Amino acid sequence: MKALVYNGPCDVSIKEMPDATIEKPTDVLVRITSTNICGSDLHMYEGRTEMETGRILGHENLGEVIAVGKAVDRVKVGDMVCLPFNIGCGFCENCERGLSGFCLTCNPGTAGAAYGFAGMGPYQGGQAELLRVPYGDYNCLVLPEDAREKENDYVMLSDIFPTGYHATELAQMKAGDSVVIYGAGPVGLMAATSAFVKGASRVFVVDTHKDRLALAEKIGAIAIDDTEGSGVEQIKELTQGQGADCGCECVGYQCCNMHGKEVPNLTMNNLVQSVKATGGIGVVGVFLPQDPGAHDALAKEGKLAFDFGQFWFKGQRIGTGQANVKAYNRHLAKLIQAGKAKPSMIVSHELSLDKAPDAYAHFDKRDEGWTKVILKPGK
Amino acid sequence: MKALVYNGPCDVSIKEMPDATIEKPTDVLVRITSTNICGSDLHMYEGRTEMETGRILGHENLGEVIAVGKAVDRVKVGDMVCLPFNIGCGFCENCERGLSGFCLTCNPGTAGAAYGFAGMGPYQGGQAELLRVPYGDYNCLVLPEDAREKENDYVMLSDIFPTGYHATELAQMKAGDSVVIYGAGPVGLMAATSAFVKGASRVFVVDTHKDRLALAEKIGAIAIDDTEGSGVEQIKELTQGQGADCGCECVGYQCCNMHGKEVPNLTMNNLVQSVKATGGIGVVGVFLPQDPGAHDALAKEGKLAFDFGQFWFKGQRIGTGQANVKAYNRHLAKLIQAGKAKPSMIVSHELSLDKAPDAYAHFDKRDEGWTKVILKPGK
Amino acid sequence: MKALVYNGPCDVSIKEMPDATIEKPTDVLVRITSTNICGSDLHMYEGRTEMETGRILGHENLGEVIAVGKAVDRVKVGDMVCLPFNIGCGFCENCERGLSGFCLTCNPGTAGAAYGFAGMGPYQGGQAELLRVPYGDYNCLVLPEDAREKENDYVMLSDIFPTGYHATELAQMKAGDSVVIYGAGPVGLMAATSAFVKGASRVFVVDTHKDRLALAEKIGAIAIDDTEGSGVEQIKELTQGQGADCGCECVGYQCCNMHGKEVPNLTMNNLVQSVKATGGIGVVGVFLPQDPGAHDALAKEGKLAFDFGQFWFKGQRIGTGQANVKAYNRHLAKLIQAGKAKPSMIVSHELSLDKAPDAYAHFDKRDEGWTKVILKPGK
Amino acid sequence: MKALVYNGPCDVSIKEMPDATIEKPTDVLVRITSTNICGSDLHMYEGRTEMETGRILGHENLGEVIAVGKAVDRVKVGDMVCLPFNIGCGFCENCERGLSGFCLTCNPGTAGAAYGFAGMGPYQGGQAELLRVPYGDYNCLVLPEDAREKENDYVMLSDIFPTGYHATELAQMKAGDSVVIYGAGPVGLMAATSAFVKGASRVFVVDTHKDRLALAEKIGAIAIDDTEGSGVEQIKELTQGQGADCGCECVGYQCCNMHGKEVPNLTMNNLVQSVKATGGIGVVGVFLPQDPGAHDALAKEGKLAFDFGQFWFKGQRIGTGQANVKAYNRHLAKLIQAGKAKPSMIVSHELSLDKAPDAYAHFDKRDEGWTKVILKPGK
Repeated sequence: MKALVYNGPCDVSIKEMPDATIEKPTDVLVRITSTNICGSDLHMYEGRTEMETGRILGHENLGEVIAVGKAVDRVKVGDMVCLPFNIGCGFCENCERGLSGFCLTCNPGTAGAAYGFAGMGPYQGGQAELLRVPYGDYNCLVLPEDAREKENDYVMLSDIFPTGYHATELAQMKAGDSVVIYGAGPVGLMAATSAFVKGASRVFVVDTHKDRLALAEKIGAIAIDDTEGSGVEQIKELTQGQGADCGCECVGYQCCNMHGKEVPNLTMNNLVQSVKATGGIGVVGVFLPQDPGAHDALAKEGKLAFDFGQFWFKGQRIGTGQANVKAYNRHLAKLIQAGKAKPSMIVSHELSLDKAPDAYAHFDKRDEGWTKVILKPGK
Repeated sequence: MKALVYNGPCDVSIKEMPDATIEKPTDVLVRITSTNICGSDLHMYEGRTEMETGRILGHENLGEVIAVGKAVDRVKVGDMVCLPFNIGCGFCENCERGLSGFCLTCNPGTAGAAYGFAGMGPYQGGQAELLRVPYGDYNCLVLPEDAREKENDYVMLSDIFPTGYHATELAQMKAGDSVVIYGAGPVGLMAATSAFVKGASRVFVVDTHKDRLALAEKIGAIAIDDTEGSGVEQIKELTQGQGADCGCECVGYQCCNMHGKEVPNLTMNNLVQSVKATGGIGVVGVFLPQDPGAHDALAKEGKLAFDFGQFWFKGQRIGTGQANVKAYNRHLAKLIQAGKAKPSMIVSHELSLDKAPDAYAHFDKRDEGWTKVILKPGK
Repeated sequence: MKALVYNGPCDVSIKEMPDATIEKPTDVLVRITSTNICGSDLHMYEGRTEMETGRILGHENLGEVIAVGKAVDRVKVGDMVCLPFNIGCGFCENCERGLSGFCLTCNPGTAGAAYGFAGMGPYQGGQAELLRVPYGDYNCLVLPEDAREKENDYVMLSDIFPTGYHATELAQMKAGDSVVIYGAGPVGLMAATSAFVKGASRVFVVDTHKDRLALAEKIGAIAIDDTEGSGVEQIKELTQGQGADCGCECVGYQCCNMHGKEVPNLTMNNLVQSVKATGGIGVVGVFLPQDPGAHDALAKEGKLAFDFGQFWFKGQRIGTGQANVKAYNRHLAKLIQAGKAKPSMIVSHELSLDKAPDAYAHFDKRDEGWTKVILKPGK
Repeated sequence: MKALVYNGPCDVSIKEMPDATIEKPTDVLVRITSTNICGSDLHMYEGRTEMETGRILGHENLGEVIAVGKAVDRVKVGDMVCLPFNIGCGFCENCERGLSGFCLTCNPGTAGAAYGFAGMGPYQGGQAELLRVPYGDYNCLVLPEDAREKENDYVMLSDIFPTGYHATELAQMKAGDSVVIYGAGPVGLMAATSAFVKGASRVFVVDTHKDRLALAEKIGAIAIDDTEGSGVEQIKELTQGQGADCGCECVGYQCCNMHGKEVPNLTMNNLVQSVKATGGIGVVGVFLPQDPGAHDALAKEGKLAFDFGQFWFKGQRIGTGQANVKAYNRHLAKLIQAGKAKPSMIVSHELSLDKAPDAYAHFDKRDEGWTKVILKPGK
């Protein structure tokens, strides 16, 4: 089969790889029809992680079931399914409580597994023609009849829509709240969408990229242009000096200041200031325990110079981590089906698999207009 | 009236001060019969805060109502009452949601007021013969018939018992959980007591003071002696390498390493390691937005070099801040009344008000055996 | 002052009554500018309650503060305020937990007080020129600058919007859920609005009145016409036989079957069937402990022949009771201010106070088009 | 293998049956070493259900794994395991949210499956030498090293300990609460134990059997003897007329009044009176949608003449249904392992499997002292 393979820093290519197959009786085999490039693919692409060369990337996957193992009871050949980026077993201490992003079975020794992801187990990614799905009955979201028609919406259930939603859950957002979101990339925009779904009164989205801020405005948010570093002040002004009711971090450790320099503590310290006392902060932007490629000593160790005193004095709360996609994907699918959410609105490019290496290069440079790429292996 | 007055760093004395009185129709006047010295009094005593000289200290107060304002409907002269250390109005946006520790009325411009506390409004403390209680109907916990008999238990409802309990709530502890608590001081011991009340299966208490660890064992906890800096390892070993289900920080910004040096990020980074992936961490130890008296540059700004990468990767949560005492004191009073909790077990000294200056000196040096001091102004 | 007075069953009139005044230092005096007639006013109007003759009705009130007592600190003369229909003290065991609908102070011997309401304390109603508001700092919601412009929206915060919202909270509705609502009266329509605010994927509204069902469709709901008694079947068909994710009862004890006969257990038993296993049911329609005017023996004692076996077997949950308006009104006000909710859409009539007796007569007969009446005492 | 077979009303016997085997790759085969007789076995025994003759009873099972299917990854031969009475798949909409008692896969057409249970699917019970466990990785709780030593404690994790705990969760009990429990049978006693584990200040247990009330007192509860029908009054007196903070129903549809007559609405209506306004009520006693063997017309249809008016007026909540055992069994196991809970204290008889028919007869007559029977098939 054809697949997008990681060859080393900033080097990916389409190669012929052995076909994915049913390896265990609980497996499901999927012919991929849509698979996205994600911001966290770029961490691997840039060589900022321990990704092994020769592996297939891609953790935002959707397709058609073409074979099932002997122990699979629910999923059927022909089903259109969307796969959560995290792989769970369904029966460990974490999965049984719904914490499928922290499965203790699928990546022994740590908590959490994923397709084509550094440090998240040996699983191949789905930027390919075929994908092996472990524990298929547990991991496949079977889509309704309109699956093909709304495929570009449903594929967002693999990661960024649940991840954006997770940010608002970790922030303990309630109907009527004002919400401040740092980052107008795909995840930040999905967080804004989720906030509106849940009844936010006002959503402030902070970024420095004007094309992304324009998208934020398109979904009803108030765009906060932080190019001059005045984001915190603007939010305070709009909230009678109190700060927003809660906040979301949708950028991660590579956040940059107004001069384009990586300042890893920038968004977190700004959030402490931008959110009111007693408010919650949800962090879904990726932060890593080690980052040898970072510029300063603290960051290399995965540490931030965090305004803990201010944070404590304000009695705020932080929730973090990868989204447990299965906790949200069924409900978000119903909203897509009912026409209440349309996450495909952020898609900028639909490309064949062959175009993937080129797309990585553009997306990594944050070239204007490259918001979100969907690859279509079948086409 | 006689009162304990702050004269400057490490200098307090008993002075004659004007009698506290009813100033507003919603006030209640209390003759103090028990008032504790708290660990956070020491922050002020040592001159590590902006405490004004000439003010009366004391925020852990209990006594008898001797007068009520014209608008007071519930509290009666003769009632024995315990006063939450935080002062709330009962009607602001935060108080009405139960966040009485973050009242927006009583200390305008910030969130939260307290008796005799730096930066928490102009209110006098209760290490005195009399105390004015604002918004008396809201702030007074009227005690049951056994108030005098169990006075040393009920006075703990003013602060440390609810604060310890708050730590377990912020940590989202559930029955059956294992809990790791950093700090075996009064608050840490109350957190351990609270954890057992709520059905903890195992409680690990980490400290370097052997007398305090002995108290922890007395209430059923597993004492973890961190003198050699091996606390994290010990906890991992006791939890099959996973870490405890949740954790509590009961030390604060002045936490010291095994050589007695202040290392403000020590307990928080150890907690991230000592708590399992997806676990919650409750922080009730005090951290300050600025600490000009600190030794290093980060700490002066109230910042910690926090292991954010590890924290995020493990998908943990942190809750912080002063306890909303009113959220817990009624329920904890019922446990004292029913004989299910006996917080007075940590009291080491009962002294007359005159002995307060001497007690501050001993307590500040952490002299062995000075766990908790109750002052008895009437005696 | 002029006021609408209850003279006996189906007999109300506008009379000159003594001016409302400040009676206690915590009181606030309000000049009423908008006051609605509520469905529960009709229970009293019809003589189905123990309402005392000579009392002023009206518990959905909004107006301008014209005087405040000496102990009032927050509310100012000139403030536009909306008053929750329930009157709380702010300091009892229930109010301090946010259960302001079950205040133990304002109506001693029972839990809960209200303006102009049978069995809810001696307070006069607000269908009058003036209203005395007890514990004004606690009970007044001070409105933002656009108070007068959106007065017909904000007045709905006194009762029906929070009550409809409460139904969805009691039903434990989550974003993405489908919701079935029995009753397309003002409260049912507000429950539907609230469900959409909170991200419902589909809302089914069941009623037999076509004008009300048309309103339900106008806000995006799926109207279920139960004229033939097929409501349950229709919902099952629309939900693959499972039933809706959760449900709301917005009718109460006077619910009628398709032949117009009162069948008090009709909506509850239909809800048990219309909601899926494990689903929640929120009941805000009024049910009374005694109903001497009822037709059958069970109903006279306030009992229902309830399908408890089915309810238990499906593992469902029921939450009941009057809305704690203060738990929701601030947040719902923000949604009105932000233009995200427009509850005035259900208003059918704006009338001067003089027209109130006539309006009662029409509203009581459920005359077509009489959905919701706002009285304007000043005009 | 030998097994206890249901032959018809009040007729069970030990018979040779075909050995249980691995039928599907996800199955686990268990040699039963402990299996209890449950109160709900008596419903079937008495012929009050649609139980098919020829089936093996027994849903409270513990034993040793002797074989696993090819798709089983976690459970190993030799593991000591306790089986939740409900059988879940782990991947349906309900199981993935932790609602394993309402599995949509294992008993198609309804929600919820169990071993040897009327209406809960075709699964054989475990009052036998061998038991087939479907979806073994999901359903087996692997026990710690002390499994054999504390076997009589751990077997209670199959049903009654989690069921009693579930009652307190459905009642939304919090630390410090007073709790009233109707029923001092095994489940009621486990609810009382659970309430104390979670920090109840006082637990009232209501029953008419003096031997069971004595057991309730032994675990620290206040026994309320309802022989004279004064239970409600006694509780009101002990709670200043308010009622307990929350309540649990642990009796079910066969509850009897003081004259030994079945009065199905007795406990529920007493609970509405015994619990304070705004309090929660958890119902784990079994109620059935139909009960053809009942004495009155309402009961035959599974209906109760329920005090809905009083219930609503007090703003109470009810949660119902079978316990989702997996939601609690891991945590309760930790409490047993730590010596914090000892559910075996209620065991009155340990018998060989041969003695089962005799034990059913005694237990069904509620013979004094027959509180709880454990069968030991291996002995």
